[in-house]
Amino acid sequence: MHELFVTEVAAERNRELVDVAASSGVPISVVTDKAAAALSETVTPQGVVAVCDPVEVSLDAALTPSARLVAVLHGVADPGNAGTVVRVADAAGADAVVFAGDSVDVHNGKCVRASTGSVFHLPIARARSAEDVFTACRAAGLRLVAADGYATEDLVTADLRGDLAHPTAWVFGSEAHGLPDEVVASLDGALKVPLYGGAESLNLATAAAVCLYASARAHRA
Amino acid sequence: MHELFVTEVAAERNRELVDVAASSGVPISVVTDKAAAALSETVTPQGVVAVCDPVEVSLDAALTPSARLVAVLHGVADPGNAGTVVRVADAAGADAVVFAGDSVDVHNGKCVRASTGSVFHLPIARARSAEDVFTACRAAGLRLVAADGYATEDLVTADLRGDLAHPTAWVFGSEAHGLPDEVVASLDGALKVPLYGGAESLNLATAAAVCLYASARAHRA
Repeated sequence: MHELFVTEVAAERNRELVDVAASSGVPISVVTDKAAAALSETVTPQGVVAVCDPVEVSLDAALTPSARLVAVLHGVADPGNAGTVVRVADAAGADAVVFAGDSVDVHNGKCVRASTGSVFHLPIARARSAEDVFTACRAAGLRLVAADGYATEDLVTADLRGDLAHPTAWVFGSEAHGLPDEVVASLDGALKVPLYGGAESLNLATAAAVCLYASARAHRA
Repeated sequence: MHELFVTEVAAERNRELVDVAASSGVPISVVTDKAAAALSETVTPQGVVAVCDPVEVSLDAALTPSARLVAVLHGVADPGNAGTVVRVADAAGADAVVFAGDSVDVHNGKCVRASTGSVFHLPIARARSAEDVFTACRAAGLRLVAADGYATEDLVTADLRGDLAHPTAWVFGSEAHGLPDEVVASLDGALKVPLYGGAESLNLATAAAVCLYASARAHRA
């Protein structure tokens, strides 16, 4: 943290944070509610804004041979969705998240907020070329699996066969368009979340939660 | 469906829907984009607005003795969250969703939209008294389980012991405050989604996805 801006009310509510910043020599500025709103680019700000280093690391740094669970976002443009998936990946104990293709910038304020801190918890990489991401995943020993609502096989069937026990990079597409057919075809497999009722699909974050937790559980079985 | 309002563009895009409405004798009105926006109460309307009957049924109608999986929303005020949980419950094959306590009205436009049609797929009931809901769930033979981030036991442990094979009503609290302690204490059990990484919590919809799919899978094992 390089600098901290807090409103008076927020400083009162987050005393521990302010103390840590102060004792680390971080410059602290008390600001008005209006300034906090402008700095945080949101209508209901928390009253705390910190200036931090960018969180992105290189593909090689994110995808180490010890990685067992990785989430790849392919063309996920919505910052709220992307941030929520980072939070879910963190919760499920993923080793890294990779933003591939035309995905949103992880530093987008809405993405950072939706991640509720998780952008600082696990390595996050970005590469414009999805091909480079897939190559790096395979080099790290990860099986590339598309989360694809149109897949013929569902993740429960795959799990019962033991497939989810492999180190896995789940590849998630945008909520609006899913993954392009040629991307799905280029991966090592494709699985859908089973739909037992009348719903035609799940949203990105809830589908990611089911997929990533299925792998997390298989890895610990 | 009692009446249908469509823009010209949306009528073109949803020809099948318009044909079904027309052949069922539903009055159809072509409206401007501006009218569609006002009717749908959203800034990026789909251009289709239908007037339908309220979807709510009585507790007794929703909670039949054949129910095996039910989602209870306790004090969930955010319509987007509530609608997304209805969608997840539908996808996981739940038999009903119950809105309890000070939860949002299921007919709220944002809730209906977030459910992407699922409010029409499974029985939805509402009761101001959470106690009445819990009594009705028990009468239907359902085990009441709190989804509670502060629970000592996690759902994987419970699942391995066979607990999730029982007919279950999952009780979810608001994203901001979770479930009140006295509600958790009054139920038959409390389980948390395990957090394997640095995240402190999951959001309501992703936690519900993991819980409901764990039950759905246990019921089909």
